[in-house]
Amino acid sequence: MLFDAVDCLDDDRLGDWVEYFTSDAVYKIVSKENVQRGLPIPILLCEGREMIEDRVSVLREASVHNLHYDRHLLGSIRVDERDDGELALRANYAVFQTDLEGESRLFSTGRYDARVVLEGPEPKLREMIVTLDTYAINNLIATPI
Amino acid sequence: MLFDAVDCLDDDRLGDWVEYFTSDAVYKIVSKENVQRGLPIPILLCEGREMIEDRVSVLREASVHNLHYDRHLLGSIRVDERDDGELALRANYAVFQTDLEGESRLFSTGRYDARVVLEGPEPKLREMIVTLDTYAINNLIATPI
Amino acid sequence: MLFDAVDCLDDDRLGDWVEYFTSDAVYKIVSKENVQRGLPIPILLCEGREMIEDRVSVLREASVHNLHYDRHLLGSIRVDERDDGELALRANYAVFQTDLEGESRLFSTGRYDARVVLEGPEPKLREMIVTLDTYAINNLIATPI
Repeated sequence: MLFDAVDCLDDDRLGDWVEYFTSDAVYKIVSKENVQRGLPIPILLCEGREMIEDRVSVLREASVHNLHYDRHLLGSIRVDERDDGELALRANYAVFQTDLEGESRLFSTGRYDARVVLEGPEPKLREMIVTLDTYAINNLIATPI
Repeated sequence: MLFDAVDCLDDDRLGDWVEYFTSDAVYKIVSKENVQRGLPIPILLCEGREMIEDRVSVLREASVHNLHYDRHLLGSIRVDERDDGELALRANYAVFQTDLEGESRLFSTGRYDARVVLEGPEPKLREMIVTLDTYAINNLIATPI
Repeated sequence: MLFDAVDCLDDDRLGDWVEYFTSDAVYKIVSKENVQRGLPIPILLCEGREMIEDRVSVLREASVHNLHYDRHLLGSIRVDERDDGELALRANYAVFQTDLEGESRLFSTGRYDARVVLEGPEPKLREMIVTLDTYAINNLIATPI
């Protein structure tokens, strides 16, 4: 399910990606550096799917010409059941980007911490926290991670 | 099983790798760029295991001195059952290469789409489509991906 | 479980990492080059958890200022049951390092071969062999892999 969600990013189907979130979902990007220093300021914070959609459509307009492909590699996914019946998923990731010349390079490494709701026909993300190792990202704003 | 197959590539056991295919298997390498443009021309197309073997033995001769090690990293593997009883496997990959000086670098990222037949004592690949993000590969021809 | 163990390395909790080993555990780092040449000399050999702890505390002192973050990405993990009831785990890995400027780069690729004991409340590592592709590592000694 996490797999399918990041697949949308790789295929540049951002509209589909948004569908993986609950209406009250939180999507947050933080840097590992800040977390370790106890600084709670996120790089990006979206509260509610509407805000995620909004953000995505801004990105869409800003990057009409898609200048690269993403490729998400998830390491083994750890699944824990929470007391409230939701699932906690954790996985390390590496995102590689390929430019228009067909050269691939490492873009970002870090970790996903997700909370998944199982009610309803499809599991949905209620919370998605991306902890970035890599914070020297020039084009961070170009697409979600 | 996909794991074991790519393991053969990492260990340079190309003969063992070929054994993972059915006799009528298709092995195809395409670039994501071409797929997105609707261009159906593959970078490599082998129809039947014999043709895969043939191709592999040509590569063998051309690269007597193995100039690098490969290391395949598969992300989480998505498994779907197909109507015909075969399995559809999908996984993102990154291949790293290490040269004779012991330096590793990113070689290629992309996706595997495989069809697996479950008849017989061992599962076999009936189809293996490699979609390359990275198409600026100088030494692509050196080994299968 | 392998996931949780390498997670300790990523979070710089080396004390917790050591806890994943049995008291008689072997932790060994070898280079793929040496293995292929039949040279049995390891880059690092720790026999017993005490020796692993010792090694770790030396590293701790040598790197008071943690100059980077690690991020381990494990590919799919292959699990085999052994005749003696232990489990054999095998996984390819890539380790990425992020420096204080927030730049990430590939640090090392290779393979884990682990033996896991299931007695007791928690599974433990009885043997962990790290086979490095990348042996041109300047700062290899900085942390375990």
